[in-house]
This record gives sequence, C-alpha cells and structure tokens, in this order.
Amino acid sequence: MRLASGWARMVPLLHWARTYDRATFLHDLLGAAIVSFMFLPQSLAYALLAGLPITAGIYASILPLIGYVLFGTSRFMAVGPVAVLSLLTASALAPHAAAGSPEYVTMALTLALMSGIVLTLMGLFRMGFISNFLSYPVVSGFVTASAVLIAVSQFKTVLGIETHGSTLLELLPQLYEKLPELHGPTALLGSTAIIFLILMRNGLARLLTGFGVKPKVATALARMGPLIAAAVATAEVLALDLEKAGVKTVGALPSGLPPFTLPYFSGEVWRDLMFSAVLISLIGFIESISVAQTFAAKHRNLVLPNNELVGLGASNIIAAFCGAFPVTGGFSRSAVNYDAGVKTPIASLLTGAGIALVITFLGGFIAHVPQAVLAATIIVAVMSMADLKVLSQTWNYSKPDFAAAAATIGMTLLEGVEIGLLSGIVLSVGLFLYRTSRPHVAVVGLVPDTEHFRNVLRHDVITSPQVLSVRIDESLYFANARFLEERLVELLLEKPQVKHLVLICSAVNDIDASALESLEALNQRLKDMGVTFHLSEVKGPVMDRLRKSRLLDQLTGKVFMSQFLAVVALDPELVKRAWAKKASESQRLKV
Amino acid sequence: MRLASGWARMVPLLHWARTYDRATFLHDLLGAAIVSFMFLPQSLAYALLAGLPITAGIYASILPLIGYVLFGTSRFMAVGPVAVLSLLTASALAPHAAAGSPEYVTMALTLALMSGIVLTLMGLFRMGFISNFLSYPVVSGFVTASAVLIAVSQFKTVLGIETHGSTLLELLPQLYEKLPELHGPTALLGSTAIIFLILMRNGLARLLTGFGVKPKVATALARMGPLIAAAVATAEVLALDLEKAGVKTVGALPSGLPPFTLPYFSGEVWRDLMFSAVLISLIGFIESISVAQTFAAKHRNLVLPNNELVGLGASNIIAAFCGAFPVTGGFSRSAVNYDAGVKTPIASLLTGAGIALVITFLGGFIAHVPQAVLAATIIVAVMSMADLKVLSQTWNYSKPDFAAAAATIGMTLLEGVEIGLLSGIVLSVGLFLYRTSRPHVAVVGLVPDTEHFRNVLRHDVITSPQVLSVRIDESLYFANARFLEERLVELLLEKPQVKHLVLICSAVNDIDASALESLEALNQRLKDMGVTFHLSEVKGPVMDRLRKSRLLDQLTGKVFMSQFLAVVALDPELVKRAWAKKASESQRLKV
Repeated sequence: MRLASGWARMVPLLHWARTYDRATFLHDLLGAAIVSFMFLPQSLAYALLAGLPITAGIYASILPLIGYVLFGTSRFMAVGPVAVLSLLTASALAPHAAAGSPEYVTMALTLALMSGIVLTLMGLFRMGFISNFLSYPVVSGFVTASAVLIAVSQFKTVLGIETHGSTLLELLPQLYEKLPELHGPTALLGSTAIIFLILMRNGLARLLTGFGVKPKVATALARMGPLIAAAVATAEVLALDLEKAGVKTVGALPSGLPPFTLPYFSGEVWRDLMFSAVLISLIGFIESISVAQTFAAKHRNLVLPNNELVGLGASNIIAAFCGAFPVTGGFSRSAVNYDAGVKTPIASLLTGAGIALVITFLGGFIAHVPQAVLAATIIVAVMSMADLKVLSQTWNYSKPDFAAAAATIGMTLLEGVEIGLLSGIVLSVGLFLYRTSRPHVAVVGLVPDTEHFRNVLRHDVITSPQVLSVRIDESLYFANARFLEERLVELLLEKPQVKHLVLICSAVNDIDASALESLEALNQRLKDMGVTFHLSEVKGPVMDRLRKSRLLDQLTGKVFMSQFLAVVALDPELVKRAWAKKASESQRLKV
Repeated sequence: MRLASGWARMVPLLHWARTYDRATFLHDLLGAAIVSFMFLPQSLAYALLAGLPITAGIYASILPLIGYVLFGTSRFMAVGPVAVLSLLTASALAPHAAAGSPEYVTMALTLALMSGIVLTLMGLFRMGFISNFLSYPVVSGFVTASAVLIAVSQFKTVLGIETHGSTLLELLPQLYEKLPELHGPTALLGSTAIIFLILMRNGLARLLTGFGVKPKVATALARMGPLIAAAVATAEVLALDLEKAGVKTVGALPSGLPPFTLPYFSGEVWRDLMFSAVLISLIGFIESISVAQTFAAKHRNLVLPNNELVGLGASNIIAAFCGAFPVTGGFSRSAVNYDAGVKTPIASLLTGAGIALVITFLGGFIAHVPQAVLAATIIVAVMSMADLKVLSQTWNYSKPDFAAAAATIGMTLLEGVEIGLLSGIVLSVGLFLYRTSRPHVAVVGLVPDTEHFRNVLRHDVITSPQVLSVRIDESLYFANARFLEERLVELLLEKPQVKHLVLICSAVNDIDASALESLEALNQRLKDMGVTFHLSEVKGPVMDRLRKSRLLDQLTGKVFMSQFLAVVALDPELVKRAWAKKASESQRLKV
C-alpha cells in the first residue's frame, strides 16, 4: 500500500475518486452547467486581451484544466485564461510577431509549452520556494499597474478606435488624440455595459438582499453580470443590425472541439521567449497558489505547492497542443466554481465539456457578441485588481517596501510589465540585503557583580581600557562582512590604547565563506595594528565549520567559551573592580 | 574651522599637505624615480591586453592618478591600468568595434568616463556598500577565471600566432591548431622571458637573501624582473635586428605628453556600454579598496570607502580626456610604491611626470620592446592572481559558497567575464535568500516549575492539547513569510484539536510588508479553520510598526507580553499541571 499512497499524494485524483458517488456527481453536474455559461464572456475577453483569436480563449477553458485535475491539490480551482497572464502573453509576443497573425498564435502556444515545462520542472525539483522571492509589495504593485495597463488598453475597443503600443506613455496620448474619432454605436454599447457591470457588481447583491433574496443567491445573480451584458448586447446587435453600422463582433466560431496544434520547437524562438516564460510561470504560480490557499483554509485541507506546480505545468503543456495560450488558476473563476456548489474536480471536466457544447450549439449567437462589451467586462473585472492602497499602507508601515511597490508600479506603467517586474524584484532583494548589511554592533561592558555583559551606551557597566568587547547581533555573511570589519577597525582607531579585541558571537548562527575571509583579513589587519583578536561564545555548529578553516590556526588570540572567561583571562583587574562592591560587602559581613 | 575640517575630510590632500617638508619630498622623489621605470612594462602590457595602442597604457599611468591623489584616502595607492580591468575593457568593447580601431579607442575613453561617473555618484551618494553584494567566492572565482583567460589570450603573442575570440572554448582549439605556425624568434624570446620572470619571482629573492643581501633589497630586485626582461630583450632585438626577422615590437611612440581626447557622448553608445561600465566600476572598486585596506592597516589609518570611490571616479574621468582607459588602484603597483619608500601621494604625481620624461627621452628605445616579452610579463603577473584553492576551501567550508565560486569560474571561462560575474552574483544572492527562507521553527512547551518554554523535541516539557506554541528564530521577511505560513498550517492540520496558536516573536527583529501580509492571510486562514491566532513577546520596535498596520485590529486573538502570560490566559490547567510537583512539595512542607 505504500506505493498506492505515494501515488495518491502525487495524483490526488486517486484519493477522492474512491468515495465519488451519484449525489456528488449531481452536485458537480449542476455546478458545471452554471459555470460553463458564466466563464464564457471572460474566456472570450482574455483572448482578446492577449491579442489572440477569440477561439484561443475558448480552447484555453476546455482541455488545459485536465492537467490540473490530475495533479493539483485544490478541489475548487478553476484553471483557464486570466487577465494578468493574458497581458504578459501580449507583452511577450508583441516584439516578435503581429497580434493575431499565425506566427503570433503559434508563439503563444510555444509560450504555454515553455511555461508548462518550467512549472513542471519547478514542481519536480521542489523549487516552489523561488516564488517567495517575489515580495508582496512587488506582486501587489505589479498587479495594480497591470490592471491600469489592461483597462487603458481596452478603452480603444470600448470606444471603437485604434491605438498601438503597450505602455501608459504610448497609450494615453493616442486615446486622447483619437477620442474625437470614436465610433458612436460601439462607444454607446461599451460604456453602457461598463455602467451596467459596475452597478451589478456593487449594488445588485445588496439591493437584492434588501428585497429578501438570500445573500448566496444574490451574489450568484450579481456574478452573472457579464453573461447578461453579453446576451443583451448581442440581442441588440442582432435586432438593430449593428454589425452593418460598424460594431465589431466576435465573428464566426469553429465547432467546440479543440484542434490539435503544434508550438514552435526552434532554439531561437525558445531563447527569445525564455525570460517571458519564466515570468509567466512565476506570476501564474503566485496567483494560483494564493487562490488555492484561500479555498483550502475553509476546509482545513492542505495545498502542496510542488503538486500545484506540476498541475499547472501539465495544464500549460496541454494548452500548447490544443490551440490555447498560458493559463493558471484564477480567483474569480474559482470563486464562481465554489459558489456554484461543485464538490470535486470532476466538475472542472464537466465544465470543459459544457463549454464545448455551448460553443457548438450557441456558436451562431456568440459570433455576434460585440467586442466592446467584452472589453467592458475586462475593464470592470480588473478594476477590483487595482489596489493603490498598497502604496499608502507600505508608506506608513515600511519605507523600503514602499520603494519596492512604487518602483514596480512606476516601471510597469512606463516601461512595460517585464521591466517593471524585474525592477521590483531587484530593488526588493537589494533593499533587503542593504538592511541586513548593517547589523547592530554593540560595544559591551561587564555589569557590576555579575557575569553579564551589556551595551555600554545603555547600561552602567565597567570596561577595560586595553580590552574592547564587541557583540554583533546578526549572522555574518557576504553583505555585512566588510561592514563589520570596517566598524571594528574604526572602533580601534578611536581607542589606540586597546591591545585585545573580543568579538562576541552569541547571535551568530552562520559565518559564510565571505565573512570567514573577512575575519581572516581582520585578524591580519589587527596583527599589523598590534591588536590581538579573540572570539567568544561561538555556537557549536559555527565552531564545527570554523575548525575546517584556517582562521583558528591564524587567529592571534583565543576562542573563549564565554565572554566572562575572556575578560578573566585578558584583564583580571576588571573583574576585581566589577566585583569590588560585593567583595567589600562580603568583607563587611565577615567583620 | 568646521568648514575647513569638512574640506579636509573630503580632500585628504589638505590634511597631510600642511606637514609636507623637504625630507619627505626627497623620499617621494627617490621613490618616484624608481617606480617610473618599474611601472613601464606593466603599463605597456595592459594596453596590449585591453586591445588598445600601447600609448593608452602610458597615458593611463600619467594623469589619471591626479584624481585619486586629490580625493583618495590611501597614501601608497598607485592608480593605473590593471589586468582585470583591461580584460573587462576588451570584453566590453569587442562586440562594438575592432580592437585598435579609432572607434575602439574612443569607446575605451567613453567606458572610462562612464565608469568615472558611476564611481563618483556611488561615492557622493554613499553607496559603496553595493560592492558588498559581490561575495568573496564570486570575486575570488572571477579573478581566478580572469587570470586563466588572460594568460591563455596572451599565449598567442608569446608564440607569435593569431587567434580570435575571448572565451576558453574559442581560444584553446585555435592555440592548438595554430601551434605549428608559431614564429620561432618570437616564441624563443617570449618563452625565455616567461622562464626568467618565474625564476626572478620565485627564486631570486630567496637566493639573494641567502647570499646576505637584505630581504628588502632582495625583494626590490626581484620586482625589477619585468624591467630587466624588457631591457635585455630589447637590446637583443636591436643587436640581432630581430624586427626584420618578424618579431613584433611596440612601435614608434609619440612624445610623453598626454593628448586631449574626447569620448563619445551619444546616448546609444552609452546605453550599449552601461552594463559594462557598472561592472568595471564595481570590480575596480573592490580591487582598489582591498589594496587600500591592506596598506592602511600597517599604519593604523582609516580608509573611507566613499572617498575612495570619488577618488577612483575622478581618476577615470581624467582618463577619459587624456587618451587612457579604465584605471583603478592595483596591488602590484601599490606594493612597488610602498617598497620604494614613498611617503605621500606627491610621489604619485612625481611618478606620472617621471613616466612622461622616460617616454620622451627613451621613446626611441622603448619602440623596440618586443610584444612577446610584454605578454610574458602579463602571464607571469596573473599567475599569482589565479587561486583555485578557493574551490577546495569553499567545498570544505560551505557548499553554497562552493556552488557560487564554481559557477562564477565555469561561466566566466565558458561564457565570458560579464555573464560569468553576473551568474555568480545572482547565484550567491539566491542561495543566501534560500538559506534564510527556511528559518528554524520550534514547537515549545512549558518547562515544569518554571516560566520558561523550550523545544518539545529536545526537552521534557509540558504542552497543552488545545494551545499550540511556536517559536520562530528569524526576522520575518518576504522570502520566509510564506514558509512560516505553510509550516504553521501544516502543524495545525496534524493537530485538529488545537484551538489557539501562539507565535512567539522573541527572535523577530523585523516584520516586512510581505510578512505582515502573510500574517494577515494566516490570521484569516486560521479563522476559517476555527483557530484563534495570538502573538507573544513581540519586541518594542516591531510592536510600534504593527500598530500602524491592520493586523492588530483583525487579529482573532491577543498580543501577550510573555509566553507564560499567554499560557496562563489560554490554558490555566497546563500551568497547574506544570507546577503540580512544586505545589505538592510545598503542600508537604506545610504538613
């Protein structure tokens, strides 16, 4: 049974499939039927955002989710196209091919395959921790800036005008310039849809609850906004023959069955897309894992990050071969899933089948969905993603975090998503290293009548003129090694009468090779200055490693078990002075 | 006087100039006379290595050092061309222009100007700490790999054959293939020079000391190896008319007065060279500051890193306008300076003038110095730079440091200096973050009859079934925030009966915005799981910052002053049990 349980951990499907029964299936079937319709406008819209034919959005919602169902750990996760990955895909492909061209479509498949491979490898080699290097201010700033970029880029579709470019500086002037050229009927449909969707989202649930509708039902109805908007707008298009008046619609759809497609396998294309594929993998994983954790907590079940990686990897590899583009687990999709009462990932499979059915039977109607309404759907959806509060929060809480968030937002808006994200990562890592590169260093003295040593600046302690005792409150590593070296030399230059330096290592959990080298250099510099260099209170594991180095042989001084023993050996007079009071007291007692 | 002392700190020249007298001047003059000759072969050779006309090496040794004299803090530092910067210069310019062409020469000036500006800005904005991010294994590995690359690249000149390329994979096969085409007289001169220089370096000083020569004089004579080799070889070239036989020499030199030159000011060129300029600045600074610290320690005077930066920056800016290329403070140059008995930076100025005089009066002779002997000088000089011991040392001492060193060496040899250095930096920072991203997390229990809490795995302690107390031994930041969150949720899933989680923050010095966000998410997840979340022993400064956040309002539990108070409040029975023994003892005593 060990093998079986090993498999069950790798393929969670095997775990819950044993208890699957008819009641659960009916729950899943009903949920899937609802969700199939609800996903539709989103799926179409995100294909539009990625610069791909509308079909790519549909295909991305049908087969890819099988990969996650097999390996992923969350039961409610809905894998499919999401806003940020669509933007990243568009941004990655724009320099290499014209949006919508056959090369562009094949490159999107390639990006999905590469991202799938990156995710799978990260999962197999248990490297999910890499996503931890994207700090909260960076991710939050990036999502906010992306939402702004997405919304601005969709206004052209809502207004029926043409713009080019992908950064704010490129888009805003064009929007302003071309505003007079807007296409009346398109703009009317689009802006009505935006207003309707905002009202649905913010007011409807509350209004309905006020009329006595159950909150859960009210929320579900409010979530149907995009579906209602698309259906009504399409009916208008058909009734008023708006396509002849120049309103752009989705256009003819093929059958719902996904095609078999092949990505590029050329080394050159892969090299061009590698950086983007890694970014898409990381951002997709972060989005998906946050969603999984949110839902998992409600059911006390555990999300295994490495399984999630393999699940998302499999989904993206499938995406590459069925006419889709990079996918991940999205929050709004999964919330719809959860609210619809689905019980197992079987619902996801049924949803995929449902979408295929809907496309096959309603394709004729869907062909007339106006693009402006889909753009409106995107704009309203990303409005909730933008969170400028991250700036005020981090400003109040921590200035380095504010700097990272502000840089990410600024660079993403001005220079695009990839440079924006990269600037944020480099800055947040750099600022972290900077903070740890100047650890607290305290000169300490002996507290009278004890064996304790305390900071001379904060306590009334006794110090020795020829012994300088210094405590460092941090592990020693490359970014702070030289700082410590300089700080100690500075201290010694202020006190030319010092003959012994004792470095107290009670807070040092690690000494890396750079810090070791720095300690060796310090030992030599101190030797040249005529100062003996000692260590005290070195922890066991640190001492074990130091024994493998040359430092202990070269050290001009000794390693003392405790700082008190160091002072006893180097300046016995000091101890006598510090204990004089007690001594005289005990003297008096004797007398 | 505050202004004056401020100026003296910024321009150390003003400090020692007050006590400058005739005796010091004579010391400096004598030292400079020696050094002028000794620097010559090096200066010519490094220009050759950088792919520049020999004159660039001379000009780089004359005026640029004025910048350092004005702002630098080390008295013995000799600023000029050095091996690693020459290699970096060649590598930076190779993709953009043909070695030795006028464009190439002007781009070298541009690189010097940009590097000068970068260094000056780093100094003015006190950003010298940036160089700390280059860890010892990376720098050491980089210097070792550079030495190998330099030596291999110079063999073509020693052997009188032609090769192209800059990585080991490009150079080695060509050397092997073209070995039969070697130019006899050149190869003879070059290889004799190598053997002679190695003997001078390793054996002469010892031999002379054995004959009763003073060690200091013996070292000085041994250091004259390159000068003797160049002089003897040139005499041979002239005597045997080897130039007609095809031995390549330095060629006609202009007068010793440096020309006024202008670098490029085009945005495109600057963009192309920006990355290289930053790398050259960092590596140049690290080399120079190490040299300065070595000599400063012997005299108990302090090196101010930010002044050093401004000094090196000024030197490079001057280099850009006098026909030179990027310069920095070199170890061997400075050692020569120190051994020659110079007292103040005035000697540097005299050396500059001395070199100009030497070129003017001995230019006719120097024109016939064979290039093969200069290449031999480089090969022997860099042999002492290569230190493969860094691999065995780090292997024994710390595997992550070994990985960083090995990656830097491998990538530098195979992919070139810039990619090599960058790989090393990214890897060492990544490995550091990885190490700190999985801090020690301990479940603790109450030590009977005390108020102390200890790790349940190591001590015999009493724990509560419904209260889980966890201590984290690290500050919380973005790379470990999610790890902690996952670890705590995992622990709770193992113990479904737990109702309260207390996080002991006694070792937490900082909580950044990512960790705060993670704690908020954890609070919500625990709420969904029905577990109350408490904190205990939060340090003052951390608490001050938490008060600015929403966490304390949202927290389902409380913040306790001490872990003991937390347990008293959450499970008074536990305390009774833990103190039962004592209680029964005191009971017994009463009876």
